[in-house]
Amino acid sequence: MGLVEESIKPHERLSEHLADDLAAVNVLIRERMASKHAPRIPQVTAHLVEAGGKRLRPMLTLAAARLCNYDGPYHVHLAATVEFIHTATLLHDDVVDESGQRRGRPTANLLWDNKSSVLVGDYLFSRSFQLMVETGSLKVLDILANASATIAEGEVLQLTAAQDLATTEDIYMQVVRGKTAALFSAATKVGGVIANAPEAQVAALSTYGDALGISFQIVDDLLDYWGSGATGKNVGDDFRERKLTLPVIKAVAKANEEEHAFWVRAIEKGAQGGGDLDHALVLLKKHNAMEETRIEALSWAAKAKDALCVLPDAPIRHMLTDIADYVVERVN
Amino acid sequence: MGLVEESIKPHERLSEHLADDLAAVNVLIRERMASKHAPRIPQVTAHLVEAGGKRLRPMLTLAAARLCNYDGPYHVHLAATVEFIHTATLLHDDVVDESGQRRGRPTANLLWDNKSSVLVGDYLFSRSFQLMVETGSLKVLDILANASATIAEGEVLQLTAAQDLATTEDIYMQVVRGKTAALFSAATKVGGVIANAPEAQVAALSTYGDALGISFQIVDDLLDYWGSGATGKNVGDDFRERKLTLPVIKAVAKANEEEHAFWVRAIEKGAQGGGDLDHALVLLKKHNAMEETRIEALSWAAKAKDALCVLPDAPIRHMLTDIADYVVERVN
Repeated sequence: MGLVEESIKPHERLSEHLADDLAAVNVLIRERMASKHAPRIPQVTAHLVEAGGKRLRPMLTLAAARLCNYDGPYHVHLAATVEFIHTATLLHDDVVDESGQRRGRPTANLLWDNKSSVLVGDYLFSRSFQLMVETGSLKVLDILANASATIAEGEVLQLTAAQDLATTEDIYMQVVRGKTAALFSAATKVGGVIANAPEAQVAALSTYGDALGISFQIVDDLLDYWGSGATGKNVGDDFRERKLTLPVIKAVAKANEEEHAFWVRAIEKGAQGGGDLDHALVLLKKHNAMEETRIEALSWAAKAKDALCVLPDAPIRHMLTDIADYVVERVN
Repeated sequence: MGLVEESIKPHERLSEHLADDLAAVNVLIRERMASKHAPRIPQVTAHLVEAGGKRLRPMLTLAAARLCNYDGPYHVHLAATVEFIHTATLLHDDVVDESGQRRGRPTANLLWDNKSSVLVGDYLFSRSFQLMVETGSLKVLDILANASATIAEGEVLQLTAAQDLATTEDIYMQVVRGKTAALFSAATKVGGVIANAPEAQVAALSTYGDALGISFQIVDDLLDYWGSGATGKNVGDDFRERKLTLPVIKAVAKANEEEHAFWVRAIEKGAQGGGDLDHALVLLKKHNAMEETRIEALSWAAKAKDALCVLPDAPIRHMLTDIADYVVERVN
């Protein structure tokens, strides 16, 4: 950074703008994750909920509601709902992937056990369900029920697509919609719905969340090869877990016979040796797969920004625009 | 059975009485567990949903709604909801307990893997959520959200209480409410609510489900030592998994020093040898623990039957009474 002070990031600016709302969300989260009968629950969740996540998803809900001039109390419930669903998904992912690190800390799975991760995840889902029922909005419940189904379907699809070199970009996009974009999109949409915003604005918020989530996930998958201290992930985690993400799908599509044999061995058969990650990186570069992936992320970020034009021209809208830019700027 | 033909069981009579409704539930279940994108989902769930479960929980919902003269379509949605929640819980339980058998078949966990069990369970939860939203009843959603939280809390509590000889009958009852009675109670209650039944009848249905569920679970735990071909479980499964169920809690409470040392070794430390299950059975008999457990189950069944008196005096009510009797008659 040298002598130039690093500028404040767009999600940090939004966080400051929504500081009071976010404080209320944090109070509600702590209150609702408590359990009178089962003290293990807050022990497991505190680890995740307090771990300094950026609270990006709940912020999107608060921002959407405020941008549509909501002045009731339920955007806070919905923001907490969204964070609980996200945390529950992480807990269930931890069981699933046997991944060793999440947000730079050991996963709940290693600190506790599979049982706790599954059941505490279920508990958070049920608490999120209670929170959304409290809003009394059937429209909100419908959106979140559909998002939940898309998320779960995407997770199962990812499971069956894993280690399968026949995975296409279409299947990858369905997985990304499920694992990331569905919750981003629901998060922004329910903010508009609870504010009783006009239909065109609600649709725009939904499109923004969807496109932002897709861009976010593509970049996340790219950084797994590109490298970044920002994610707390190690370069090559996805390679070692034999996940078919966009950079690899693009490189596989252009592989010659010898390269294809390499991918079959490393990804499908999982017979990985010492220099394999480096060789994978050489192939990704050779076929321009990382740059093409970055361009795809950029186009989704552009789509997210375009959607915002029907929303009120207020500071929050500009922050949402900047967040869409920042998501891809993480690649540097 | 000799020459005397075995009489038809009460839940089978109820099943015949509700045959059309149950057929509609089965159609809806098959329709909703399908997944366009992830064919593994019906593969995993078919195994459980088609495995010839008694459909007791969805039948309770249908029975409650019909008893309260409901003639709309949504009792079918709610019955499917209840079965999906139940199936999802079984899937998550399978991951958790590493149990090898369920309903006399291998568990999904062994046929597939932990990942599939967790994620397909999540998918069923989300599908059940969509089904209940379709009823458009916030009261129903509130009941099922609260039941979900009680279920998840009970599962976590069971986890922390496992292998802990300090587990009291109070804690056991909280676990039983969570793992069984909460869903029984919600199943009957939503049947009354969707039928717009008077509050006293809804409360009675809730009490019936709660007490029936408690009786059912106590008997299930008793049969694990008593033995029965009906459950598809092997005698001593709970002992080997070191679960603190009511018979053991009662025997531990009356244990002398030497017996206490046995329980510490077998349950808390899990150092079980060849003759330990037999010795445990001797101790359960010595302290009358199985008979006392049976009496407790009987008293809950009586409570269930008593609750029904405010409901219409119709054939379904008598079948519900007989089911409460039958739950305990399984011990023979």
